[in-house]
Amino acid sequence: MPPGAVSPNTVATRILGLDPGLRITGFGIIDISGSQLRYVASGCIRTSETGERPLPDRLKTLLEGVREIIATYHPGIAAVEKVFVNVNPQSTLLLGQARGAVICGAVSCNLPVAEYTALQIKQAVVGQGKAAKEQVQHMVKRLLTLSGEPQADAADALACAICHAHGSTGLGALTSPFSRRRGGRMLG
Amino acid sequence: MPPGAVSPNTVATRILGLDPGLRITGFGIIDISGSQLRYVASGCIRTSETGERPLPDRLKTLLEGVREIIATYHPGIAAVEKVFVNVNPQSTLLLGQARGAVICGAVSCNLPVAEYTALQIKQAVVGQGKAAKEQVQHMVKRLLTLSGEPQADAADALACAICHAHGSTGLGALTSPFSRRRGGRMLG
Repeated sequence: MPPGAVSPNTVATRILGLDPGLRITGFGIIDISGSQLRYVASGCIRTSETGERPLPDRLKTLLEGVREIIATYHPGIAAVEKVFVNVNPQSTLLLGQARGAVICGAVSCNLPVAEYTALQIKQAVVGQGKAAKEQVQHMVKRLLTLSGEPQADAADALACAICHAHGSTGLGALTSPFSRRRGGRMLG
Repeated sequence: MPPGAVSPNTVATRILGLDPGLRITGFGIIDISGSQLRYVASGCIRTSETGERPLPDRLKTLLEGVREIIATYHPGIAAVEKVFVNVNPQSTLLLGQARGAVICGAVSCNLPVAEYTALQIKQAVVGQGKAAKEQVQHMVKRLLTLSGEPQADAADALACAICHAHGSTGLGALTSPFSRRRGGRMLG
């Protein structure tokens, strides 16, 4: 193969992970090339914290925020975390509406959307479904070889993207400097 | 004023009423000109009933359905019913996501969105907040002088549009052939 040519195996798939919330929606973008993960970007879409803005305005911010991220980074798929049902029904309803807006941001750009539960995400990133939030964040940092800790919602979104990458390459196929370190159990 | 000229008082405001649901979202469009209501259109956006289609696809159907209605009828405002919190948290979450998609359909077309509770809608259409669903449907038919009964979800959406018209013209300002008939209580 001539120098600079790209093997079909190394063509990256870009995954947009989304962790929906009405106040803060985290996003994280990674490239997966073969079994290698590469961090691209992450951050948050924030709507007002005071609740002063009407709900439709806040949903518009989420919708347009997701659309803007897609226009900027051109991911090939969105992976969205399945949200928890809150004990407070009113909060559940608000969270549902936020998630609806976030998913609409993706589907309105004709992006396919995959959904993952927190259990699936923890399983993929840490290796067990009952892992603590901090453990997920720690493993996101290690798997993507980040120099600093990403913001919590951004980390959750990156974890969701990693979960999709994990599934699309087959269980245990991801590589990182830390894979297979804990008694041979795959952490990637 | 020359014949055919339109007085500023008779310029109609077109209201899109929306009753969000994941399976069926009702819509109803009315014109309000002065204190006169005029029926324009109504119907339903349906997503799969069997639940076989993934949620993001169904949300896309709702989003695009609302956008299509707006592109067809050019309303000036959307009035959306505030949904009930269901006893089943999972249903509440699904309903929330549907409502998020419906509102995104409106805000993505830069349409302002007003929200009304079922209590406000019943109060506006029937005159009391504890009215039965059938009574609301009956009054929608009478207020808009419809020849037949609209489908239940479409009737709820029309009721929501009437509620907005009611508020925007001041309490009791709407007229219909049946207003003031029941012991002087405003029904419009």
